[in-house]
Amino acid sequence: MNLSEKVLQGDIRSTARLMRLVDDDFTVAIEEMKKLYKHTGKARIIGITGSPGAGKSTLVNQIIRNYREKGRKVGVVAIDPTSPFSGGAILGDRVRMDRHFEDENVFIRSIATRGHLGGLSKSTGEMIRVLEAWGADPVIVETVGVGQAEVDVVKMAQTSIVVMVPGQGDEVQAIKAGIMEIADIFVVNKSDKQGADRTVNDINMVLDLAMPLGEDPWRPKVLKAVAYRNEGIDEITDAVSQHKQWLIRNDKMVGRQRLRAELQFFALLYDKFKHATTNLLNSDIFNDWEEKLVNHQFDPYSLAEELENMLLKTGD
Amino acid sequence: MNLSEKVLQGDIRSTARLMRLVDDDFTVAIEEMKKLYKHTGKARIIGITGSPGAGKSTLVNQIIRNYREKGRKVGVVAIDPTSPFSGGAILGDRVRMDRHFEDENVFIRSIATRGHLGGLSKSTGEMIRVLEAWGADPVIVETVGVGQAEVDVVKMAQTSIVVMVPGQGDEVQAIKAGIMEIADIFVVNKSDKQGADRTVNDINMVLDLAMPLGEDPWRPKVLKAVAYRNEGIDEITDAVSQHKQWLIRNDKMVGRQRLRAELQFFALLYDKFKHATTNLLNSDIFNDWEEKLVNHQFDPYSLAEELENMLLKTGD
Repeated sequence: MNLSEKVLQGDIRSTARLMRLVDDDFTVAIEEMKKLYKHTGKARIIGITGSPGAGKSTLVNQIIRNYREKGRKVGVVAIDPTSPFSGGAILGDRVRMDRHFEDENVFIRSIATRGHLGGLSKSTGEMIRVLEAWGADPVIVETVGVGQAEVDVVKMAQTSIVVMVPGQGDEVQAIKAGIMEIADIFVVNKSDKQGADRTVNDINMVLDLAMPLGEDPWRPKVLKAVAYRNEGIDEITDAVSQHKQWLIRNDKMVGRQRLRAELQFFALLYDKFKHATTNLLNSDIFNDWEEKLVNHQFDPYSLAEELENMLLKTGD
Repeated sequence: MNLSEKVLQGDIRSTARLMRLVDDDFTVAIEEMKKLYKHTGKARIIGITGSPGAGKSTLVNQIIRNYREKGRKVGVVAIDPTSPFSGGAILGDRVRMDRHFEDENVFIRSIATRGHLGGLSKSTGEMIRVLEAWGADPVIVETVGVGQAEVDVVKMAQTSIVVMVPGQGDEVQAIKAGIMEIADIFVVNKSDKQGADRTVNDINMVLDLAMPLGEDPWRPKVLKAVAYRNEGIDEITDAVSQHKQWLIRNDKMVGRQRLRAELQFFALLYDKFKHATTNLLNSDIFNDWEEKLVNHQFDPYSLAEELENMLLKTGD
């Protein structure tokens, strides 16, 4: 039996092996990934984002537990450099997986955020596919912040959760223009702290103003939780289910799946561009190109044109 | 006199015209940009980042005023979607430039953050060059968050300022691994609020642990400010000067200038890749490629290989 077949049968060692292969020798891994592809695309992908210190990791732990109690296999892709899940990849620590460490039905994969254009999206897209093939449903993608790379990653999810804490109402006010794009569900975590209701109200007020017209619009849920006491977790997974039903009812599910496939494809393609560029720049003809740029011996525009002509068939 | 010459003489209308040209018709703009390039690279570029609600815009306003009092021309590239400077680009509002609206020696350019891979970096890189050619020193790049795209943009700066508010000490704890990469200067804004000293102490504690060894290391400054009362602004511009002296003293200035030129070059090159890819995908042969991906008629790996072969000379 080949590697991809073993992954599809839920073998956890083969799954870990394929993930390493994706990282270390993608040209070999790609043949397995091609075979897996047609068996994927149906799992629910949940994006969870929020500032450092919002308690995302504890919340993710509780959400995992909740899905485990429902008998589901859970995959996690942790790309938050501040998360204990992915912290290992950055800090050189051991990955801490707390309560799920011994559970064969939970698979947590951390991704280092260092790297260049497209690298993060590529790894994330591939890891989601592998986890899905292994049988995970949901796959949770945990990330931080609101940067473009993170937004691209969160777009791979069908349902996005933004975790906030009491007192962050200002931030919601500040981002009100894009608020409907950012989250399908807001969770005000640490809501045993002062100001939780105020933050919930602030978010709701902005949502009132931002709600689109139409027959069956999705109004983002605003939920309170105290993750470390396991309070409010059922409400979160319920909201995820409701959002999924809404997507299906409004024929939006295919659109989200398509967007994920597109993002994955572009990430793969840009990775190829990056390799070709790096190889060319490392060759003798481009000796000291960085120095020559900063010394004004040539300019970045002409250099980019030269690379284009040497790399692209559509060039000269 | 051609456009680039007028920009170099400080003509503000020509500068605005070149910026529009960069946005609207880059193939024309590029000839002007090539001529400008050798006159740029020396201005101090200051990156300012921080969460929404940290009061960055008020702070930037005061920093502008401070540099104007020193007789300097100031350029601002605002790529924070929550900033009133760049808000216009996102919200369709008029750009609000407050107190500097009538000052011919302040040029504020907002950049929409929507867009794809590399687009943000490309626009930012070009706008910095134009502002520099116009005579701005410093050029301030205002952005939000800690995502990869923002980090790339901030890398174009020689000096990075992270704006925090009282109570954000948790965040500093959380990001401690990367803290020395993130900021050369920390500003705890709104420090008339409770908890400012605590936040300053938290940051300093993390810095103590993270300080590198060596003869003349830069220890990030941790400064308090109350931007709306214009308190603590002199200290910020002083710290920027000290950091510049440190860069020069330690032969690091050229490295930062080189990094900026490299990032600009890669942004230009990836933009070319993007155009070539989009053109090809819009042609008849790739009819309904998105549907075919989601229907599993083909997989993203094979599609990326096909595009590679058709686009790249290093392909088949």
